[in-house]
Amino acid sequence: MTVGRASRHVSVKDVAARSGVSFQTTSKVLNGGGSVAEATRARILQAASDLGYVPNLQARSLVMQRTRTIGLITGDFSDPGLSRCLAGAEQEARRQGYGLMLTSMEPEGSGTEYALPAMMERRVDGILLAAPQMEDDRALGHVLDRTLPVVSTTHIAGGGVTTVSADDEEAGQVATRHLLEQGHRLIGALSGVRGRRLTQSRLRGYRKALDEAGVESANDLVEEGGVDVAGGQVALRRLLERRRDVTAVFCHHDLLAVGALTALRAMGKRVPEDCSVVGCDGLDSAAFTSPPLTTVRVPFYDIGVEAMRLLLRMVAGGPTDGGKDVALPVHLIVRSSTARRTGSDGSARAPARRAR
Amino acid sequence: MTVGRASRHVSVKDVAARSGVSFQTTSKVLNGGGSVAEATRARILQAASDLGYVPNLQARSLVMQRTRTIGLITGDFSDPGLSRCLAGAEQEARRQGYGLMLTSMEPEGSGTEYALPAMMERRVDGILLAAPQMEDDRALGHVLDRTLPVVSTTHIAGGGVTTVSADDEEAGQVATRHLLEQGHRLIGALSGVRGRRLTQSRLRGYRKALDEAGVESANDLVEEGGVDVAGGQVALRRLLERRRDVTAVFCHHDLLAVGALTALRAMGKRVPEDCSVVGCDGLDSAAFTSPPLTTVRVPFYDIGVEAMRLLLRMVAGGPTDGGKDVALPVHLIVRSSTARRTGSDGSARAPARRAR
Repeated sequence: MTVGRASRHVSVKDVAARSGVSFQTTSKVLNGGGSVAEATRARILQAASDLGYVPNLQARSLVMQRTRTIGLITGDFSDPGLSRCLAGAEQEARRQGYGLMLTSMEPEGSGTEYALPAMMERRVDGILLAAPQMEDDRALGHVLDRTLPVVSTTHIAGGGVTTVSADDEEAGQVATRHLLEQGHRLIGALSGVRGRRLTQSRLRGYRKALDEAGVESANDLVEEGGVDVAGGQVALRRLLERRRDVTAVFCHHDLLAVGALTALRAMGKRVPEDCSVVGCDGLDSAAFTSPPLTTVRVPFYDIGVEAMRLLLRMVAGGPTDGGKDVALPVHLIVRSSTARRTGSDGSARAPARRAR
Repeated sequence: MTVGRASRHVSVKDVAARSGVSFQTTSKVLNGGGSVAEATRARILQAASDLGYVPNLQARSLVMQRTRTIGLITGDFSDPGLSRCLAGAEQEARRQGYGLMLTSMEPEGSGTEYALPAMMERRVDGILLAAPQMEDDRALGHVLDRTLPVVSTTHIAGGGVTTVSADDEEAGQVATRHLLEQGHRLIGALSGVRGRRLTQSRLRGYRKALDEAGVESANDLVEEGGVDVAGGQVALRRLLERRRDVTAVFCHHDLLAVGALTALRAMGKRVPEDCSVVGCDGLDSAAFTSPPLTTVRVPFYDIGVEAMRLLLRMVAGGPTDGGKDVALPVHLIVRSSTARRTGSDGSARAPARRAR
């Protein structure tokens, strides 16, 4: 492996000399352009490889006005869903030969003050936004859309920015339908952060499923749980204090569901016999709760891949489809935290069917 | 917010004109150099801000031979520990005004073939390695050390690369001592991937603690669990088939511990009454297992911060301390998966003291 030291010294001229091909043709091949006979191209690439030639993308980009670099602006990427999404985006960029400039908006959350200028000054070819907290940044959405190709994995207020995300309404609907099919009629919901579009979509799905079944969807069946396990614990208790007849709960994400399971255990309630719990997101860790969590799987990795693919198409000058929304499908994973509603006679207690 | 559009047009000349200061002085200030009176500097920066000036780092770096960019080569960053570490590294780089070029070696794992050339061609100022699978890449360690400032969060074979990681031997020792203090004498271990330095260090700590206490540390008390929950389940079963008198198990990482808890439950054994389980890593999710997991907290975030801090000091031309190893301290978190060993008369069953 000689790339390291060699890269500082080997020039296009050196490669041309070794391959015995003209400087012009060698340069053309090394810069990825033009029609050059296959045999000649192979000879040049072999010489480049022998010498450990590394193109100076920086110098090249000044000429080509392209950096082959994508800016990635993220929220807290130790969030498991977000990190899966980034893994997908990174792999797709790499597959297509693009580099990634990474900046997070955590913990300050100042996208307009820091993250965007940082990307602009490095002359990225496009920007992938994966930062839920940017949702309300109208100014940002407006600027981005007119400056560079941009794709976001969360909706940006004001529209105009192409979005790739999960079908969140479907997620809420699928989870709630599953509970209805198990005979539940009083179904509570622990929601994510109020006002967020993700929360609204999942709630809409929940209400749609209840409406379809002609079942009550009162406001006091919904409790805001926020972002973490502790929020889920508090929300579950509040919900059951108000509506102690609830027999099932749809949690907007798996951490809330883990909180709900913990709170129910602490209250001496059995899951699923006394109360069924369904989560959403399908994180790996949800398979190992006690009992294992029924949840809706969101394809985070695929969202990252698809968002990057779309962005690179825009960078390459393809049709931009400005403001297009792509929603990837979700699916239910049935484990043991949900079961048929127990009748007042305690008769129906068969567990839900299981998958995987 | 006008940075977006403005950045393509506002030049140093424009800033000089608006501030009423000479081009030369303006350029000096905008490029961060030289001694310029505070009032003048302030006037120039105000003008730059008013106009939405964004420096072209790319052009500047060709002149300065610096890109103010660090290359980050990672493993699978949807691994929760690794992603915490990256979050720390990213925040520290940002704080010091450095950008990050990100590339992962997943799933191919070809550091020498792809990741390194990708960084070299973008002329990064230094490289942070956070990829456990690079441990055995002797060639890589050798090249990196002579080419650019490098810091790694895992040991690279052949030495020479500065490393920042946790005190893994201490981790194994602390976990095992805790079990010894609870009266356990037959203590099994589920290890990570055999041969990895991390595994060896944690095993060494385990054996050291047993030796200190004059307790048996036979080879058949150690079972390789590998990387995930399923591996932990299999390893726990194998261990108990061979040594059914084991009353406590030290798991090299939390996922193995989750596997052990699951397997014990499936075998009808109670935790901690029949068998105590202690994990390692201290992931957030370990607090919500059933029962909540006693574990050793590894400061992943701090490792990222410290590794980046050291790297940037090297980039700035500080003492390089080549091959220096920094080991950050770990600490025990006692929850409910460990308890005093039950005597043959079943007398001692008081739970372990709890923290947090």
